[in-house]
Amino acid sequence: MKITPRVKEILSWYSSDSPGTLTNLARLLGTGKLGGTGKLVILPVDQGFEHGALRSFAPNPAGYDPDYHCQLAIDSGCNAYAAPLGSMEVGAAKFAGQVPLILKVNNSDTLAKVDQPCSALTSSVEDALRLGCVAIGYTIYPGSGARNRQYEDLRALTEEAKRKGLAVVVWSYPRGAGISKDGETAVDVAGYAAQIAAQLGAHVIKVKPPKDLVEQAEAKKVFEKYQIPTKTLADRVRHVVQSAFNGRRIVIFSGGEAKGTEEIMAEIKGLAEGGAFGSIMGRNAFQRPRAEALKLLNDVMKIYAP
Amino acid sequence: MKITPRVKEILSWYSSDSPGTLTNLARLLGTGKLGGTGKLVILPVDQGFEHGALRSFAPNPAGYDPDYHCQLAIDSGCNAYAAPLGSMEVGAAKFAGQVPLILKVNNSDTLAKVDQPCSALTSSVEDALRLGCVAIGYTIYPGSGARNRQYEDLRALTEEAKRKGLAVVVWSYPRGAGISKDGETAVDVAGYAAQIAAQLGAHVIKVKPPKDLVEQAEAKKVFEKYQIPTKTLADRVRHVVQSAFNGRRIVIFSGGEAKGTEEIMAEIKGLAEGGAFGSIMGRNAFQRPRAEALKLLNDVMKIYAP
Amino acid sequence: MKITPRVKEILSWYSSDSPGTLTNLARLLGTGKLGGTGKLVILPVDQGFEHGALRSFAPNPAGYDPDYHCQLAIDSGCNAYAAPLGSMEVGAAKFAGQVPLILKVNNSDTLAKVDQPCSALTSSVEDALRLGCVAIGYTIYPGSGARNRQYEDLRALTEEAKRKGLAVVVWSYPRGAGISKDGETAVDVAGYAAQIAAQLGAHVIKVKPPKDLVEQAEAKKVFEKYQIPTKTLADRVRHVVQSAFNGRRIVIFSGGEAKGTEEIMAEIKGLAEGGAFGSIMGRNAFQRPRAEALKLLNDVMKIYAP
Amino acid sequence: MKITPRVKEILSWYSSDSPGTLTNLARLLGTGKLGGTGKLVILPVDQGFEHGALRSFAPNPAGYDPDYHCQLAIDSGCNAYAAPLGSMEVGAAKFAGQVPLILKVNNSDTLAKVDQPCSALTSSVEDALRLGCVAIGYTIYPGSGARNRQYEDLRALTEEAKRKGLAVVVWSYPRGAGISKDGETAVDVAGYAAQIAAQLGAHVIKVKPPKDLVEQAEAKKVFEKYQIPTKTLADRVRHVVQSAFNGRRIVIFSGGEAKGTEEIMAEIKGLAEGGAFGSIMGRNAFQRPRAEALKLLNDVMKIYAP
Amino acid sequence: MKITPRVKEILSWYSSDSPGTLTNLARLLGTGKLGGTGKLVILPVDQGFEHGALRSFAPNPAGYDPDYHCQLAIDSGCNAYAAPLGSMEVGAAKFAGQVPLILKVNNSDTLAKVDQPCSALTSSVEDALRLGCVAIGYTIYPGSGARNRQYEDLRALTEEAKRKGLAVVVWSYPRGAGISKDGETAVDVAGYAAQIAAQLGAHVIKVKPPKDLVEQAEAKKVFEKYQIPTKTLADRVRHVVQSAFNGRRIVIFSGGEAKGTEEIMAEIKGLAEGGAFGSIMGRNAFQRPRAEALKLLNDVMKIYAP
Repeated sequence: MKITPRVKEILSWYSSDSPGTLTNLARLLGTGKLGGTGKLVILPVDQGFEHGALRSFAPNPAGYDPDYHCQLAIDSGCNAYAAPLGSMEVGAAKFAGQVPLILKVNNSDTLAKVDQPCSALTSSVEDALRLGCVAIGYTIYPGSGARNRQYEDLRALTEEAKRKGLAVVVWSYPRGAGISKDGETAVDVAGYAAQIAAQLGAHVIKVKPPKDLVEQAEAKKVFEKYQIPTKTLADRVRHVVQSAFNGRRIVIFSGGEAKGTEEIMAEIKGLAEGGAFGSIMGRNAFQRPRAEALKLLNDVMKIYAP
Repeated sequence: MKITPRVKEILSWYSSDSPGTLTNLARLLGTGKLGGTGKLVILPVDQGFEHGALRSFAPNPAGYDPDYHCQLAIDSGCNAYAAPLGSMEVGAAKFAGQVPLILKVNNSDTLAKVDQPCSALTSSVEDALRLGCVAIGYTIYPGSGARNRQYEDLRALTEEAKRKGLAVVVWSYPRGAGISKDGETAVDVAGYAAQIAAQLGAHVIKVKPPKDLVEQAEAKKVFEKYQIPTKTLADRVRHVVQSAFNGRRIVIFSGGEAKGTEEIMAEIKGLAEGGAFGSIMGRNAFQRPRAEALKLLNDVMKIYAP
Repeated sequence: MKITPRVKEILSWYSSDSPGTLTNLARLLGTGKLGGTGKLVILPVDQGFEHGALRSFAPNPAGYDPDYHCQLAIDSGCNAYAAPLGSMEVGAAKFAGQVPLILKVNNSDTLAKVDQPCSALTSSVEDALRLGCVAIGYTIYPGSGARNRQYEDLRALTEEAKRKGLAVVVWSYPRGAGISKDGETAVDVAGYAAQIAAQLGAHVIKVKPPKDLVEQAEAKKVFEKYQIPTKTLADRVRHVVQSAFNGRRIVIFSGGEAKGTEEIMAEIKGLAEGGAFGSIMGRNAFQRPRAEALKLLNDVMKIYAP
Repeated sequence: MKITPRVKEILSWYSSDSPGTLTNLARLLGTGKLGGTGKLVILPVDQGFEHGALRSFAPNPAGYDPDYHCQLAIDSGCNAYAAPLGSMEVGAAKFAGQVPLILKVNNSDTLAKVDQPCSALTSSVEDALRLGCVAIGYTIYPGSGARNRQYEDLRALTEEAKRKGLAVVVWSYPRGAGISKDGETAVDVAGYAAQIAAQLGAHVIKVKPPKDLVEQAEAKKVFEKYQIPTKTLADRVRHVVQSAFNGRRIVIFSGGEAKGTEEIMAEIKGLAEGGAFGSIMGRNAFQRPRAEALKLLNDVMKIYAP
Repeated sequence: MKITPRVKEILSWYSSDSPGTLTNLARLLGTGKLGGTGKLVILPVDQGFEHGALRSFAPNPAGYDPDYHCQLAIDSGCNAYAAPLGSMEVGAAKFAGQVPLILKVNNSDTLAKVDQPCSALTSSVEDALRLGCVAIGYTIYPGSGARNRQYEDLRALTEEAKRKGLAVVVWSYPRGAGISKDGETAVDVAGYAAQIAAQLGAHVIKVKPPKDLVEQAEAKKVFEKYQIPTKTLADRVRHVVQSAFNGRRIVIFSGGEAKGTEEIMAEIKGLAEGGAFGSIMGRNAFQRPRAEALKLLNDVMKIYAP
């Protein structure tokens, strides 16, 4: 555990939290190859629930076994491994203490027709404690007609997690009737999503890399009036990080669908340049053969902390 | 803390409350430049949640950092600072004891399509206690099809807050299918909104400055029959204050969208003349450069207590 | 407190209740000018919430102050004063012990468009205890699509109130998609409303004076077959009182909209002749100047107990 | 109390129940003229709530007083008296110990328009204990779109009742969008209704006498294939009783609308011949003059235990 | 109880569970003719609730009595017997300790019209403990618009069951607006259903034998791209078992509608060859005469452990 001055500085932004929660945040920041740098790379594997095991693991069948992923997170030196209840239960005892665990407490599948996107609560703060996790993870869909229920469930979970010394990671993915498909990753929407998660009390905020696009007319006027640059990914990431309490909340970025290595590296460079605190990288890692995944994660970490 | 005879008189209107709640009301009334006068100016910053960080803070980027606002409230001598959970958590420890804090426990964003306006519960009475706040703040939308749920959630929060020694500030903003867009700030509607908040047990009621307009036909007849004046803002404010237990509840007014300084001053004068207990001023303050904001808030306070 | 043989007889109908609840029922029956007669006149002031302060209090502006009403109830010798949370909180400490208080724990406003009439729960049994009340008051709307929720909320409140030694007063006002506008006060509907409230465990039932009109076809046949008279108000009141356990529940009648003194007196006479246990009189009292209101209430009481 | 070998045999079917619940079942089976025979006749009076006091009691106005019915149950030697909360509260203390009481904990009225039939919960297991009852009674409407909520509420009540030593009587009345009006009493539907109530953990099941009619096409094929007779009432009752764990749950039958004495006697004979455990007889008893009602109930009991 | 090395190996996959839950899993795996082999045959009888007693038991009327089935499970050497509350209550005391019991805690009937398939909760973890069961059983319908409520109810039950030392068996039956009728047993959907149940924390997963059919276009591409065989039942079962944590969760298969013996045997062989952990066989067993059922179950077990 590397609790460097930078880690202490970041922890100082969470001064309303209990020593228990600060300890778990410190574990997140102090573990792995990036430990102590203030940067994070997290391996999340909830795609089995979200898209089915087949689509998630057929490209690299070793991944059908949840322990594969946890071992990959350890061996690659990730800051943490995130997964839903079932996957976590398989390996929690075996891997105890080897890598910080984030229990993804809500999940969604793609078998049902959905009007108002909303994940189901699938595990609890008590489960996270029982399994030795440092944090819970929760997805909100701002823009959904069901957002209020999500915010309110998250509120209750967050209150409980903080009382019991855990950290809270929020996946903030705008989606639903209020937002166009393209607009889900518009720069204004991404910034707004980061702000909402920050206001809801998240310690770590996960958003998607924003595109050079503005969704809301009111926002467009503001970007223009104040000549806020949005051309490069770094520009846009800067806006998103600023939107999360001027950079005083940890904001990390997901990679989305699997893609080529070069494309990934270019994106990570943009994220890092814009001030991202790191990446959460799932399919791009675990769908590759193990050796390639280890190399990729290593390369990504090098960009964040050269 | 200036606990003057006027403050004691106001506290006497809340004789059903516990010493704990009276103490926190006294803190609200006894702090800042207006401390002891029975008047209040409060700085609320929930616009990041309501409209996004961009639209709220781009005009004065220092505001992306929540601590900027809390410091502004302290330096300008406001009676209190109000904010949602996330913003409050950033600064609560640092600013402990420097200014009364109001935790805004419900919030709404503008990313989703909404039929029945309703904010989400985003924090709790326990959070307010944990963060050292003197009060919770809650928004109701009378006129919304979802108003009953809001009144009932507020009822539970109010009961808990009073039991635990906190005060309750209610933002009463009529809105929804039952009311025309213009009618949201009609004088009859504003008076009704103040009455509802008072009956729901609010200690402090926040409404919008009423326009010279009557929304409901039944109310129109009454204004005419009893020749109740509504021409000047002072006239209308008088009616609203009277509607809150004949002036025995603290009624303060928000400023709405950012506007010019003169316009603001004219409005504050009308409010003060009509018997308003003060103002809650957000965007008009924090979107200005700090020096201007300090001057503006100072000028506003001077009108309330020359 | 006049605990006469008649009061004891009435209390004997509530033999399943605890001494705590019987004590509070005795207070209701033993207080005021009608104390000990088994008759009641109650002053209810929830119109500020129901119709707005303006429409309720502009005719007699002293009424904007809730204490005005409580003092009026005391000075006129009413059995009790009923009001929502906010109004009650203003005066509860000041008037402690001077008049039995009934906390109206649900309320409705007229700002929203409503499909299924349903009041919001606005205070609690714990509030009633805290404020020194003898009873809670609750409105049900039989005929509403939302009636079941109302019956179930009332069930929970009633169970709690009885466990904690309070009495329960039910406003039973048929309304909603199942009933025509006129039918709301039809004699069959009024009798049914009284029966429902009695079965739900109410100690005191408040209904509207029934009109000479039968709403339901099935009921019409029964009135005709058994030649049950409904021509005079006394006839109809007799049916309603009989419908509440053959007169073994306290049934009182509201007066509805403000009207002329003679009209009121004629109605009270009909109610008294039909066996009503009393009246609950709001707007007709408090919208008059104080001296007139005192006289009116005195005259009404004289009719019930000459 | 006649705890005969037959009663002990019946109790042996409930071997998963606590001594407390077995004791109350024994009271049901051991009381009244049929005490010890394993047969039951119960007097239920919830029609005041279901159809209004007028339609229920105008034919025999003594019935407006709930005590009339409880006395009738005692004097006629019924096994038990069933009623909603209000009626039960009037007489519970006065009649303490004279007849087993069943508190009907959910009820429905006929003032509202209803899409999905569903009764409201109107009293509780705690009420039943407070009033000295041996059982709670609950109505489910299989076939209603709201059936799941009813099953789930019943589940919670049943768990609580069993934990606290009470028995559970389920009125199983198929009704709603899934079933034709005629089909509500079809023999397949009646058997299915009995099975559902049995699986939900009911100790005593109340269904309507089944007609010679099959509602569901799948069921029709089975009746035909296995040549299961349904021509006589006895045939059909036999099927229904068999459907409740092959006769190892107590199944009793209601009489429905008031009708002539001969018609009733013929029906009771069919029920008895088919193996019914008894009848629950309301309007046919209490709408007759007391002497006639006593005679009728006596005659009915004679058929069950000659 | 045969706790063989294979049983211990299987138990090692559940290392996050308490000794209490492991003990009950060991009972499931160590009992009956297949005890110790790591294979299971379970007799489930919830068809009385699902299709009515008539359609379920008319073919073999002995089955109307729930004890018939429990005795059949014991005599045939099944690993466990599963049933809803009512059936279980009849026999739990009599059969105490003779066979592991699985309480089916939610159920559905076919009397109502249903848009979003959803079973009702009909019993509880506390009931399972009270009745001496080793596990609860719960049905989810992935693909239903009401799936989230089901996942969330299951989550709460699973948390409670694990805390109290019980195992959890999940019936995962895709169904609802999101899936075509045929697609309910498509191979991709069956694999997805197994994954969801595994992620929700199930110890034992029950799915239907998958057909050679792919429902989702995205899945089709993956099957083709990676040339995953789906032609034989064994192929498809292999995919389903792999989808449940690469075979590290117990996956068993139901038989569906009653059919001929040869057809059954062919299916069981395919299941066994594909790596199924066993079968759950209801109608195909209990609708046969007892001797035939015993023989059939014996033959099935022989296939799983020759």
